[in-house]
Amino acid sequence: MSVDSVRVGIDASLKPELLQGFPPEVVFVRVPEHPTEVLDVDFWILSFHRKNVAEVFGWLRGVKVVQSMMAGVDWILPWLPKDVLLCDGRGIHDISTSEWVLSAVLATLKRLPAYRDKQLRGQWRGWGDSGDELMDTGGEHPEQYRVQCDDLSGKTVLIVGYGSIGQAIEQRLQPFGVNVQRIARTARLTPEVHDGGSLDTLLPLADIVILIVPLTDATRGMIGAAKLAKMKKGALLVNAARGPVVDTDALVEALNTRRIFAALDVTDPEPVPADHPLWTAPNCLITPHIAGSTPQFVHRAYRFGAEQVKRYLAGETLENLVSDAGY
Amino acid sequence: MSVDSVRVGIDASLKPELLQGFPPEVVFVRVPEHPTEVLDVDFWILSFHRKNVAEVFGWLRGVKVVQSMMAGVDWILPWLPKDVLLCDGRGIHDISTSEWVLSAVLATLKRLPAYRDKQLRGQWRGWGDSGDELMDTGGEHPEQYRVQCDDLSGKTVLIVGYGSIGQAIEQRLQPFGVNVQRIARTARLTPEVHDGGSLDTLLPLADIVILIVPLTDATRGMIGAAKLAKMKKGALLVNAARGPVVDTDALVEALNTRRIFAALDVTDPEPVPADHPLWTAPNCLITPHIAGSTPQFVHRAYRFGAEQVKRYLAGETLENLVSDAGY
Repeated sequence: MSVDSVRVGIDASLKPELLQGFPPEVVFVRVPEHPTEVLDVDFWILSFHRKNVAEVFGWLRGVKVVQSMMAGVDWILPWLPKDVLLCDGRGIHDISTSEWVLSAVLATLKRLPAYRDKQLRGQWRGWGDSGDELMDTGGEHPEQYRVQCDDLSGKTVLIVGYGSIGQAIEQRLQPFGVNVQRIARTARLTPEVHDGGSLDTLLPLADIVILIVPLTDATRGMIGAAKLAKMKKGALLVNAARGPVVDTDALVEALNTRRIFAALDVTDPEPVPADHPLWTAPNCLITPHIAGSTPQFVHRAYRFGAEQVKRYLAGETLENLVSDAGY
Repeated sequence: MSVDSVRVGIDASLKPELLQGFPPEVVFVRVPEHPTEVLDVDFWILSFHRKNVAEVFGWLRGVKVVQSMMAGVDWILPWLPKDVLLCDGRGIHDISTSEWVLSAVLATLKRLPAYRDKQLRGQWRGWGDSGDELMDTGGEHPEQYRVQCDDLSGKTVLIVGYGSIGQAIEQRLQPFGVNVQRIARTARLTPEVHDGGSLDTLLPLADIVILIVPLTDATRGMIGAAKLAKMKKGALLVNAARGPVVDTDALVEALNTRRIFAALDVTDPEPVPADHPLWTAPNCLITPHIAGSTPQFVHRAYRFGAEQVKRYLAGETLENLVSDAGY
């Protein structure tokens, strides 16, 4: 059923340039950071970084749709009434997050964090020349020459969580000549995707393990000590999903024994406290949950928001609907 | 004209596993680091890191072919007699060097060096939150949101030196949705390659400039103050060619004014002395000439060497011949 107008709740500070794609039937309702009066809103577009979403929601009246700009909605599900439609940001992070994953994989293989550390000390020295950092990884005959950096070519990459971002990651890996393995909740063919039960079988074969699952009861703590122990010596664990998917204590232990590499954009706890052992664990690269946050992403997000509002006005089914069973 | 046997000069320390691909007609001559007697060698395979190649060559008798494993042969041309055939390592670096270039580009866009520095200080803080490091780059409306990292998607990439490695770089850039411009010594079509004269026109349009030219009289000092001034504010200069292609003083100055980013695997001087201002220039990532040096590369190199020796035995034209005019 189509409607004649829609009250769209947006951030009070949102710049007008981001609203250009919205249709004329929209009445924008600016939602302040801390509302002091009840606001009538049909379609609420959540901002990216808002911490007090549940509090703000309490001031909104008549909300039919909540549109998240994040791919994960684990932070919304607990407080959102069941009769409000929830749409996630699936697709709008594909470019920025898959690019971050490629950057994390390549930077680790090329040992860029270690070279950055040497740069800060004014040291022109190959990784293979520093006994303290040497791991006997990389290639069939690593003892033949000093390993200064490693190839991505020929590696086996396991993508755990083969959704929209997972596919974007595979697409960008394709020219590097890697062997890609895929895991998702539901197994399927073309391309071959294994179900979660295959994790134990596939982990020991992978040189690079990329986590890009949503945070659910099934994925919380998915990678603990037993799973980390199954990883190849010298393999790389990339977490671009959610911090609690990995058991942080077990990861710190695995890193401290110099068995594996890690690259994390998300952590548990998040932020990482200043004195946490994760900061100094060897062979680990940490970025502060910024993988998706490029300036272009913001524009992609609001273009998608405008399309969703048009669908709402036309009475069409919305995209990216989160069903409480399916998520 | 085919020959019955060939004396192949190799490093004294070379492991036998690298020699498996050579034909039975080969007699290997182990060339010590500092020869003390004359050695008869038809086909000399230069090792990678040998510094005293001219001295060693003085001890070799009957050399018809010198096979370099490096793509650049600027370090061989000055002392090699004109009647000795010189073959370079074109092709064998394609994978490792193009991968390093992608890692340098993505790491810079995602601000990984800056995040690594924050990690060392135990700081969970976005790039956009650090006033000291902020450059107003990234996207159409960088003022809208804090720039935590940038997209590769949509960028214009200028590849200066469109040979074998340049093509491998473009191939790996392809899924990222970038606009690639190409420069080589000789202009050509399909794909469109501009000649060196187009550098001034193309530099101001590029978000990312990748140098992968050989070092010749024409390329020495190619990127000086005037060229750097033509680069876009916030653009990235990647040097995977040879250090002297860029004027280091001019680069340090451009970096210190925070106009551009740089990622360097090669420098001038090389190594960079401990107290050189390049080490501390802002927005610059330095690796110590390791881009090509992966363990797998060594195997690729000797497989190629074996193929060249087979061609020599069969009297076929060798690949990768360096003509003194053409280089």
